[in-house]
Amino acid sequence: MNDLAINLNVHSQTPLYEQIYSYIKNEIQTGGLPFRERLPSSRKLADYLQVSRTTVNQAYDQLVSEGYLEAVPQKGYFVCDLEGLIQLQPKPVMQASECDPAESAYTYDFSPHGVDLNSFPHNAWRKLSKDLLMEENKYLFRLGDPQGEPQLRSTIATYLHQARGVNAQPERIVVGAGNDFLLLLLCSMFGSGTKIAMESPTYRKAYDLFHNLSNDVRIVEMDESGMRVDELEKTDAQLAYVMPSHQYPLGTVMPLKRRMQLLAWAADERKRGSKDPGSERYIIEDDYDSEFRYKGKPIPALQGYDRADRVIYIGTFSRSIAPSIRVSYMVLPQRLMGLYQSRARNISSTVSRVDQMLIAGFLNQGYYERHLNRMRSVYRNRHDALLEELRAFRSICRVSGENAGVHLLLTFTNGMTEEEAIRRAAEQGVLVYGLSDYYLTQDARQYAGKSNMAQNTVLLGFANLTEQEIHESAGRLRSAWLA
Amino acid sequence: MNDLAINLNVHSQTPLYEQIYSYIKNEIQTGGLPFRERLPSSRKLADYLQVSRTTVNQAYDQLVSEGYLEAVPQKGYFVCDLEGLIQLQPKPVMQASECDPAESAYTYDFSPHGVDLNSFPHNAWRKLSKDLLMEENKYLFRLGDPQGEPQLRSTIATYLHQARGVNAQPERIVVGAGNDFLLLLLCSMFGSGTKIAMESPTYRKAYDLFHNLSNDVRIVEMDESGMRVDELEKTDAQLAYVMPSHQYPLGTVMPLKRRMQLLAWAADERKRGSKDPGSERYIIEDDYDSEFRYKGKPIPALQGYDRADRVIYIGTFSRSIAPSIRVSYMVLPQRLMGLYQSRARNISSTVSRVDQMLIAGFLNQGYYERHLNRMRSVYRNRHDALLEELRAFRSICRVSGENAGVHLLLTFTNGMTEEEAIRRAAEQGVLVYGLSDYYLTQDARQYAGKSNMAQNTVLLGFANLTEQEIHESAGRLRSAWLA
Repeated sequence: MNDLAINLNVHSQTPLYEQIYSYIKNEIQTGGLPFRERLPSSRKLADYLQVSRTTVNQAYDQLVSEGYLEAVPQKGYFVCDLEGLIQLQPKPVMQASECDPAESAYTYDFSPHGVDLNSFPHNAWRKLSKDLLMEENKYLFRLGDPQGEPQLRSTIATYLHQARGVNAQPERIVVGAGNDFLLLLLCSMFGSGTKIAMESPTYRKAYDLFHNLSNDVRIVEMDESGMRVDELEKTDAQLAYVMPSHQYPLGTVMPLKRRMQLLAWAADERKRGSKDPGSERYIIEDDYDSEFRYKGKPIPALQGYDRADRVIYIGTFSRSIAPSIRVSYMVLPQRLMGLYQSRARNISSTVSRVDQMLIAGFLNQGYYERHLNRMRSVYRNRHDALLEELRAFRSICRVSGENAGVHLLLTFTNGMTEEEAIRRAAEQGVLVYGLSDYYLTQDARQYAGKSNMAQNTVLLGFANLTEQEIHESAGRLRSAWLA
Repeated sequence: MNDLAINLNVHSQTPLYEQIYSYIKNEIQTGGLPFRERLPSSRKLADYLQVSRTTVNQAYDQLVSEGYLEAVPQKGYFVCDLEGLIQLQPKPVMQASECDPAESAYTYDFSPHGVDLNSFPHNAWRKLSKDLLMEENKYLFRLGDPQGEPQLRSTIATYLHQARGVNAQPERIVVGAGNDFLLLLLCSMFGSGTKIAMESPTYRKAYDLFHNLSNDVRIVEMDESGMRVDELEKTDAQLAYVMPSHQYPLGTVMPLKRRMQLLAWAADERKRGSKDPGSERYIIEDDYDSEFRYKGKPIPALQGYDRADRVIYIGTFSRSIAPSIRVSYMVLPQRLMGLYQSRARNISSTVSRVDQMLIAGFLNQGYYERHLNRMRSVYRNRHDALLEELRAFRSICRVSGENAGVHLLLTFTNGMTEEEAIRRAAEQGVLVYGLSDYYLTQDARQYAGKSNMAQNTVLLGFANLTEQEIHESAGRLRSAWLA
């Protein structure tokens, strides 16, 4: 018993059984209690330590369950062979809040990827999370359906129908960890070498991803209605990647007529009369920020008008809830379900079931509707404040991309280049973003250069700045650009 | 005021301000309160409803923040234009626990993918989750590093060094939502058409994934030490996918000599003297269940012996914590960091930051070590129980794959085929799994057929069955196979 000189602290937050457990475990690990050593009976140790026998038994049980002790009936507890036991050195624990990334070198950051997190409903989220982690939900830790939880998919189907006019059965929805992952999944379905039409400028990550997986990306000219379907027709592309509700980064909203032309393109086969599935055309509709529209009703998704079953619809909660919520979804056309089953369904789900049920609860219990309307109101006020401030620059630039999304575009008409505008703003501590990064190739950039956009346009994202900050930073931009 | 015939229920769990909010919101949505209608002042409404003015103000503020009301200074509150507001029909809420998947048609399921969830530390998990969702951690809802949270990566590096002998700096670790996703990321790095050597039988999902992304998979013969390096040498493969610690599904442990041969293969260039990065060879080491070894110390990872910087190490928490925890990690060789930066880093992280910090806390606060030792002890008892029961079948089969992982293989030597064994077990309500599903091609299957494995071997996973269930099901298997 002298081996077990345990100093119990009855005032500690750590339960007594845990103190006994830790002491004995450490003795075993450091060799103080060697292999095969017999421990005192729980009654003896309890007497010696002046604690209840239950407390000692709890400690012994814990040590048995972790493989440090073996219980031999009628004989007592013996130290096990440590070989094979995992022993990790404790590491100093950093508090999560100490890990907040370093402050930006800029006083104001007009990031077009910003999201206002002050409006995030922390309490609701915490409550939903707590409820889900109840023991009776432990089945949520088993592997789920690769397409996503049926309940979440059914919730998304209802939401998409009500909010976006999308026709979606839960069976055709695939949930994944972000739009990038869903695009990877599509690449796996269509195989490399697929001809994919894209606009330029566009969502560059999608381009890089298609390109790196050896697809054949064809750039199709845009006009003020979006992707030109006559030009698309010339490319022999099988897939067309578009953002009809709000093109990124230009903010173009595709009018109904162009949408119908695009759907007609897709309904056609590439090689008439061919039975080859590779001859079928599809539209990838990326509806990334359709939730935020400040004038008029949101425009229904292109998918809602599709009668030929040719639209792959992609949406995300990363924009509308929070960027770190890695939950996106896609609605596949019925005719692609076979291809999905054979080439992508074997890829395990990338979103934990707890997170999926959390989102389902967030939608079903009305939090999402409230949150969206609150965010829309916050963003509209910021949008209006920025638009108002930009009137001061009327003589040197024009504004586009207004009334939706979380950024505006400013195209200089006084000869100032994008580069110069960014540099001058930076000197005032303001970070603005160049449009040229979103162009896909030097060629396309030159083409766009002719249209007077690529070389002299900056993006101003307003989601992450308060109205007060927008007014302050506008003063600095006046010093930068009008002086 | 007559418009606002609100029936407040002071005994309801719903706060009063929320009842007022809901009533007015509904009135606005259904047209009872039309656009531009002025609401009573908060003082008047408070008097009328006999509640405090604060309560009414809370309701009005909520309605303003969600865009239903507008506050005009000096004038009061007015109903907004509803156009653009998102209005969702409430949906009946299903309880998560109602969604547990249907029971299996089998009484006993020897799934090789099982995980025992009764040992899952729910309380610790819930506590960590609750602590992380505190308001001061709201930065965790911003988009994180595509490679993963620095704190998690540093925790993984320490763990891998201590438990697996892996040399990993946090800068070379990439966190992703599951092994399948990480393999997709590697495909994006190497591009399609990459020659990848695999064993057969192997982890089929990896094969499907490589194959669907148009890579050139070469099957390399195995012997009792694992992949044959002389055969590998003949293939001109750039990547070799192996599981040296515990080959899936055969359970082969690669001895040190073969490991050294494999490392020597990788250290060589494909085309001597070539500067082409495509001439460099790499090993993908999938260390999927290294945590569970029941005899002797766990074998250090192949990566730990690699002096030539040619091993891509992949590990996962899905096996060791729970399948629905979609968190895997890979350690890239330093020489591949450039390729990662240029071709894969732009793909956003697939794991939410909250989940990443949850895992980091789970490891740093000692829960993981305890959990692994407990699981190891649980699984070892099941492994031993099953092995003991299988002695009854000695005259008709041989057992392999023991002492590690969560399944055993049973190869019939009495002429019984895999198909027959599965069918006979099913008749007794027992589900066992055939080995042939893991073979990659008909050719390889025929080859393996010669070695007397592919056609007459079943897998018995024991992670999901208690010792009691193992004893019961063994009785049924005796009726099935020995009768």
